[in-house]
Amino acid sequence: MQAAVFDGQLRVVRDYPVPVPQADEALIRVSLAGICGTDLAILRGYADFRGVLGHEFVGVVEACADKRWMGKRVVGEINIGCGNCHRCTMGWREHCAQRKVLGIRGKDGAFAEYLTLPVKNLHLVPPNLSDEEAVFTEPLAAAFNIPECINITPNDRVFVLGDGRLGMLAAQVLALTGCTVTLVGRHPSKLELAQRLGLVTASASDLKQDAADIVVECTGSAQGFADALAWVRPQGTIVVKSTYHGEMPQLTSQVVVDEIYIVGSRCGPFPPALRALRQGRVKVTPLIEATYPLPDFPQAMEHAGRRGVFKVLVRP
Amino acid sequence: MQAAVFDGQLRVVRDYPVPVPQADEALIRVSLAGICGTDLAILRGYADFRGVLGHEFVGVVEACADKRWMGKRVVGEINIGCGNCHRCTMGWREHCAQRKVLGIRGKDGAFAEYLTLPVKNLHLVPPNLSDEEAVFTEPLAAAFNIPECINITPNDRVFVLGDGRLGMLAAQVLALTGCTVTLVGRHPSKLELAQRLGLVTASASDLKQDAADIVVECTGSAQGFADALAWVRPQGTIVVKSTYHGEMPQLTSQVVVDEIYIVGSRCGPFPPALRALRQGRVKVTPLIEATYPLPDFPQAMEHAGRRGVFKVLVRP
Repeated sequence: MQAAVFDGQLRVVRDYPVPVPQADEALIRVSLAGICGTDLAILRGYADFRGVLGHEFVGVVEACADKRWMGKRVVGEINIGCGNCHRCTMGWREHCAQRKVLGIRGKDGAFAEYLTLPVKNLHLVPPNLSDEEAVFTEPLAAAFNIPECINITPNDRVFVLGDGRLGMLAAQVLALTGCTVTLVGRHPSKLELAQRLGLVTASASDLKQDAADIVVECTGSAQGFADALAWVRPQGTIVVKSTYHGEMPQLTSQVVVDEIYIVGSRCGPFPPALRALRQGRVKVTPLIEATYPLPDFPQAMEHAGRRGVFKVLVRP
Repeated sequence: MQAAVFDGQLRVVRDYPVPVPQADEALIRVSLAGICGTDLAILRGYADFRGVLGHEFVGVVEACADKRWMGKRVVGEINIGCGNCHRCTMGWREHCAQRKVLGIRGKDGAFAEYLTLPVKNLHLVPPNLSDEEAVFTEPLAAAFNIPECINITPNDRVFVLGDGRLGMLAAQVLALTGCTVTLVGRHPSKLELAQRLGLVTASASDLKQDAADIVVECTGSAQGFADALAWVRPQGTIVVKSTYHGEMPQLTSQVVVDEIYIVGSRCGPFPPALRALRQGRVKVTPLIEATYPLPDFPQAMEHAGRRGVFKVLVRP
């Protein structure tokens, strides 16, 4: 099959072996896949991954021991715990030290004609969703992890820092809670799009100390964390949504003196993401920049890596 | 009056002016005061404070516009907000940017014959408490801030890192919630005392990954934070109780990947501290190492600064 493989170099190959599903797995024909910042980071060495890239996808089950899944359109959770260790038995499967992660760690991913995933990782895609919408389920679930991690009340003033892909999704998800959300970014064109999606926006120079009860840091830069500390009120919360390229930010004594809560947040729950898409409560297709065929994957990655670009999709 | 003054150098003077209470303040004769790590840090330059040191005290009101306070034995909260700024009007008086802090910031402290404090900062000491117990109210309140910041359930496995003054108080307070508390320290003699206080102890070499749901970091060293990250489970909580001397610890990608909660915690509520002391639920007097008269304050500070020393008291 065709697949976009990273083995230290990125290449699209035509003769990659079709993966063979384990007993608990389904074989899925990929319909559409999305490029994520993590894919770009892997090319720079993140996670030391070798294999087929890609973890955001929608596809159709073509083989499965449980025949009820046959022909079904699915999206899939990306973490696969070993199932036997302490963390797995405690229910922290996504934190299993031996876990495989689709397209990120020990498991070939979605930029290919086929992938395999355990059936328990799969979720049915509602019929009224297009593939272009469903492919956003995984990053949207990551946004839904924020209200899983912290309690957001309707009185809260929430800043989302970063007008990139994740920031746009996080701001829309948080606005659903009834709180006041401000998307803070640097790119006028992106902020304009955010406004068209119904979001309130601001640029950093407009903001003051104590202006936020909660700051969600989606910039992936140490400066973003410093900004979050500058704007959050005493006893406020900073949600750290991204691992940082290069140096991680330093804690400061302000964290203790101002009694700040810092929460790390990663993957999230698929069902609320699918519900929000099905009910049209979150708009994702305006974030699509371009769709490339799989043979043009290197160009698609180059496009996704440009400054200020939202979501680039790949169709096998 | 006699007072221990820091003006770049530490000296005990005999002719320091008795402070004059403001309209909303009481004049308090100090009965007993405690040396805290913060006092030692101030001598090394922390907070750039100049004046009378000391913020842990018990004393008797000798002058006050509100006559009901006259002759009453009191302890006092140490933060004095300006009362007018946004933070004060929002109820974050302890985080007022213009705040004064007894013996730490813009307000003469407790290592003197007299101090003044606003009446609203004062709490009556129950008659069955000795001065030696009551003087622990302020640091014990700081320990009671931990269950104010986070929800601790009876199933939680809690590590308190650091067998110093704060660690001993924090471990006792947390044990009251019914959770499993382990005090982790490096000093056999202190761990032995902790055991006599009814605490379970461990040394670092005994501990494993994921062994704690909650870690309370009371060591004040970057290594303590690294240890906390090593032992806390995924989605666990680290409470940072102390500002760090020198370099603050760095966030790591583990914070995001393991979805760790980090909470800064500082001063705490006096009423539960006084209740716990009154009901004998926390033992503090075994932590007293020595009591010095005020003229011997430099020797008292030298004693308090020695490795492995708990609480040194000063009697004006």
